[in-house]
Amino acid sequence: MNGKLYGVSVGPGDPGMITRRAWELLQCGAHWTYPIRNEKSDSYALDVVRRSGLALPENHTALIFPMTHDKEKLTSYWLRAAESVLSILRRGEDVLFLVVGDASTYATFSHLARTVSSIDEAIEIQTIAGVSSFNAAAADLQMPLADTDDTLAIVPAAYGVEMLDRLLADFDTLVLLKVNSVLDQIIDQLEARDILKDSAFIERAGMPEERIVRDVAQLRGEKVNYLSLLLVRNRHRIRGPKVRGCRKKKQ
Amino acid sequence: MNGKLYGVSVGPGDPGMITRRAWELLQCGAHWTYPIRNEKSDSYALDVVRRSGLALPENHTALIFPMTHDKEKLTSYWLRAAESVLSILRRGEDVLFLVVGDASTYATFSHLARTVSSIDEAIEIQTIAGVSSFNAAAADLQMPLADTDDTLAIVPAAYGVEMLDRLLADFDTLVLLKVNSVLDQIIDQLEARDILKDSAFIERAGMPEERIVRDVAQLRGEKVNYLSLLLVRNRHRIRGPKVRGCRKKKQ
Repeated sequence: MNGKLYGVSVGPGDPGMITRRAWELLQCGAHWTYPIRNEKSDSYALDVVRRSGLALPENHTALIFPMTHDKEKLTSYWLRAAESVLSILRRGEDVLFLVVGDASTYATFSHLARTVSSIDEAIEIQTIAGVSSFNAAAADLQMPLADTDDTLAIVPAAYGVEMLDRLLADFDTLVLLKVNSVLDQIIDQLEARDILKDSAFIERAGMPEERIVRDVAQLRGEKVNYLSLLLVRNRHRIRGPKVRGCRKKKQ
Repeated sequence: MNGKLYGVSVGPGDPGMITRRAWELLQCGAHWTYPIRNEKSDSYALDVVRRSGLALPENHTALIFPMTHDKEKLTSYWLRAAESVLSILRRGEDVLFLVVGDASTYATFSHLARTVSSIDEAIEIQTIAGVSSFNAAAADLQMPLADTDDTLAIVPAAYGVEMLDRLLADFDTLVLLKVNSVLDQIIDQLEARDILKDSAFIERAGMPEERIVRDVAQLRGEKVNYLSLLLVRNRHRIRGPKVRGCRKKKQ
């Protein structure tokens, strides 16, 4: 009898954001697996769990997911990780794959799950949802991600640069992820459109080192962390004609 | 000494999706408040917590948030709710406001918090993030919400009808919320664009009555629940030119 594979979301960093279901699974004797970038690196997902007070169980395996955009290289690592997981499942052990944030959102679990299924489609797989970094960001910024009937766009900031005017026409809230590479450019764009003051910056949302900057203009020229986002409320947006099931925003 | 107001996300419906932090707050003797539509209705947020096995504490108050689009009526109810909450906080009790899903995402908590702050800006307020219904939907559908560098749009479906071609040009994943009012129209549109088979339907995601339909075409003509969404993976999307910090999708 094969074990079952679980993608276990552990939330963005605060061990308090682990769900009760994930917490229960972490303590049921299953084999823990977790992603690392290379042999020498730490696993952020594992770190979140360890900070919760749980000790690493004896049966645990680090799986290498290198930071590369080389599709062939990635595929070979996914295959290797899937084979490691399969060998454990075939011993009848359940396997947890720990994921930072939510396992369906910008996470490696979908690749692992797909690769495992492609080798053995009989393997049972379950994803345990979790709190995303942008949910934690909105909570800590005390800004809504979406109000009644709002539209919400979540976009890597580097795409946002070129898309910004289209996004502002259609969306009430923008979450611009990985804003580090284009921060000055985005600040200029938001300022020119008079919505910089309705924006807030958050670095490492939900993590112990979280940093919030509400006066975003002051970040000009600063080098910020890769794990940083801008939450933009698009106050000037005028909604289109009323459509069934939605209401028009009062002007 | 005033109490503190907490917006406590309880996740989309499965009590296992309550976070450890929310779980701890629910058991710390604070005053529970929760939204109801009218005097006679149940509170879904409270129901999620009760199904977790916790009993309603003696100190609890239902707050009325009517289902209306009348801004004036809403404002007067928000004010009444804020005054109820303030009277408890001023007795020195902490107040939890229970929220289904995530408290920053299509939730009443931001209105309550804003109204409380506008009356007494010294009141301390904290939002406890939670699992959104669309995170639970993606997990249960075993479909990614976003893969590396993907763009994600979360849109009330009634807007999606008119925006669909623009959304498909810019987004890798669409979450079309409250799809009930425009389901047939959306099905036709997705079919015409050859992405209906990359879509999945989920009703009451994360709740005990959750229903998944992968062959979305079969829903034509059916009356579905208000709490229903379509998750659309936009397989045909061709990404624009490579921008800093993002990679181009392999064609």
